[in-house]
Amino acid sequence: MYSVTVRDHMMIAHSFRGEVFGPAQRLHGATYVVDATFRRAELDADNIVVDIGRAAEELHAVLAELTYRNLDDEPGFAGMNTSTEALARVLADRLADRVHAGALGDSARALDGITVTLHESHVAWASYERRL
Amino acid sequence: MYSVTVRDHMMIAHSFRGEVFGPAQRLHGATYVVDATFRRAELDADNIVVDIGRAAEELHAVLAELTYRNLDDEPGFAGMNTSTEALARVLADRLADRVHAGALGDSARALDGITVTLHESHVAWASYERRL
Amino acid sequence: MYSVTVRDHMMIAHSFRGEVFGPAQRLHGATYVVDATFRRAELDADNIVVDIGRAAEELHAVLAELTYRNLDDEPGFAGMNTSTEALARVLADRLADRVHAGALGDSARALDGITVTLHESHVAWASYERRL
Amino acid sequence: MYSVTVRDHMMIAHSFRGEVFGPAQRLHGATYVVDATFRRAELDADNIVVDIGRAAEELHAVLAELTYRNLDDEPGFAGMNTSTEALARVLADRLADRVHAGALGDSARALDGITVTLHESHVAWASYERRL
Amino acid sequence: MYSVTVRDHMMIAHSFRGEVFGPAQRLHGATYVVDATFRRAELDADNIVVDIGRAAEELHAVLAELTYRNLDDEPGFAGMNTSTEALARVLADRLADRVHAGALGDSARALDGITVTLHESHVAWASYERRL
Amino acid sequence: MYSVTVRDHMMIAHSFRGEVFGPAQRLHGATYVVDATFRRAELDADNIVVDIGRAAEELHAVLAELTYRNLDDEPGFAGMNTSTEALARVLADRLADRVHAGALGDSARALDGITVTLHESHVAWASYERRL
Repeated sequence: MYSVTVRDHMMIAHSFRGEVFGPAQRLHGATYVVDATFRRAELDADNIVVDIGRAAEELHAVLAELTYRNLDDEPGFAGMNTSTEALARVLADRLADRVHAGALGDSARALDGITVTLHESHVAWASYERRL
Repeated sequence: MYSVTVRDHMMIAHSFRGEVFGPAQRLHGATYVVDATFRRAELDADNIVVDIGRAAEELHAVLAELTYRNLDDEPGFAGMNTSTEALARVLADRLADRVHAGALGDSARALDGITVTLHESHVAWASYERRL
Repeated sequence: MYSVTVRDHMMIAHSFRGEVFGPAQRLHGATYVVDATFRRAELDADNIVVDIGRAAEELHAVLAELTYRNLDDEPGFAGMNTSTEALARVLADRLADRVHAGALGDSARALDGITVTLHESHVAWASYERRL
Repeated sequence: MYSVTVRDHMMIAHSFRGEVFGPAQRLHGATYVVDATFRRAELDADNIVVDIGRAAEELHAVLAELTYRNLDDEPGFAGMNTSTEALARVLADRLADRVHAGALGDSARALDGITVTLHESHVAWASYERRL
Repeated sequence: MYSVTVRDHMMIAHSFRGEVFGPAQRLHGATYVVDATFRRAELDADNIVVDIGRAAEELHAVLAELTYRNLDDEPGFAGMNTSTEALARVLADRLADRVHAGALGDSARALDGITVTLHESHVAWASYERRL
Repeated sequence: MYSVTVRDHMMIAHSFRGEVFGPAQRLHGATYVVDATFRRAELDADNIVVDIGRAAEELHAVLAELTYRNLDDEPGFAGMNTSTEALARVLADRLADRVHAGALGDSARALDGITVTLHESHVAWASYERRL
């Protein structure tokens, strides 16, 4: 199995609901350094998993929808705790939609899966892994 | 599949028995930067894999049992080569015990697995992955 | 010249005023991975610059005053752009106050300087360096 | 499942054929920071996956066949796009050959798999994973 | 003293002349992860050293002049060993020219200095520091 | 001012004397990831600060004198707390001796200074900087 990963980041504000979150129930923020991994069993005709430049552009586009925002004000996240792991799934699903729509090229439709990892600090990160 | 990882470290002395270890048969030491990864298929009612703060506390507690010690003198490791990979299993098993005992909260009992990675330097690390 | 550095982090929300900031004028947030460096020309009687454990505790205490907060609501930052470089100074000055107050031990009064670096992402960071 | 990873690097020149590569069709180069991961279900008699020193030596030997070269001039790569993911497979296969030939020791023949990851920059990397 | 640093990268081919370079006399290549640091004694009216977005754009523009190229073919480097440290100076001087030309904004003319660091691998890097 | 840095590591056991060290008074150990920086005002005839390969070899040789040892048993460290910052000086002085003895080549005698940084974990490191 082959994989290619590209890295970018976003900077958002949000708060959590639930006693388990302690002081993180207050409005605060995070830089998420985001790794998007694309997997497939065999390389395409160009001998690649996916074009790294195009993968980076699509990841950047997906992050542009969220960065420099207060996620508490985003209608799409109403009533949802935007935990690091939950955001990993949001990003993976949005990247999967773009793969299916052909944004990463025709050959990318043969991808087997995507993993998105969000690093919230030097000591904590979370991932979501899915099939395509 | 979702995962959450927390990082901490421990600093120990030890020696190895066996020609394969060369100069590492002498008493020496290591800083292990330790990553503990918790996996589950679905998020809990708070939309998380496990509370990151609580995961960090339990990892710290498990490392506190070993750090600033000479592992050659620990009864639990008598006659055992405390290699990086062997220590990864020790830590994963101890974290699993804590999960089963409820130390990471009730919802953490639904975790599917744990992986522990010990970085012994910038050029070498080892992991142990297990189910819960 | 000797130095010792300890690392910790904080997660805050804030916004900026001024066209130069573009989309960062919206409420957003950041994880700052914070490095505090303590410098001195000669080591103390224990052969150290400063106790690393105590330095880590004081850095943590200084960050605890800001983390999990919206800096736009902090009276101390009213009318101030809390840029990464400006926050580096705030933290360096607060650490310097603690050094002068003896929080890092008597021998730490012989420190020559402090540098604080805030990493706002994997591709951007800022520092403030001062004498003691 | 246990694993051990060692890291080294190589510095090569190459060019790509195909419009998808854009400016990377020109002769350029890369530092690949290379991670080789060895996996097995149970530890050997010395309580290790593989000797880390020996693993590092074999990885270094495999990289020495390619480093400081223009891959466009290597007969073994004629007509092939030496993408990061394709090179990950080349290195994994060469390491597998060495494992089978006994270069990592007799007990290493019980290894279950190898993964090779090539980091081409701080924002992009690729992997190939195979069984042994 | 304040500073702000931004990071980007370039991927080039080149060769060296001189016995000291050993196998690096052959045509090979490198990824340089490049950090550009801007220093000044006092912050500007927006409370910043320099706009991080603009600094990142100018660094990217300077790197775009060299990336995906064989430096042996660049007229500007004829007869010159394009060592990591020499390239650090080239980039620092080109950034300084852009600062002087106003590309980083009017307030950036008050910058005191620039340092450029090129990481050629996980185990080697070089810097050039200059005044403005 | 130019600089070149090379990285390597050592793994040692030791203990500290003095209440300030708390649990670190027990025999424990550390991996030190060691960065050696060489500085000079002008490049040499080959357009370099120092040959990176040779610098890496000399750093490795200096570390080989200490790695895989219990520093408490080393006669040269009798009665001395081998703190991270104190070891940084030991290594810087030993590298300086090698520079003066010509081990880094004749042109390296024009070096202006050396800095050695020892990373003891992902959250703490120490440096010693000296002139040549």
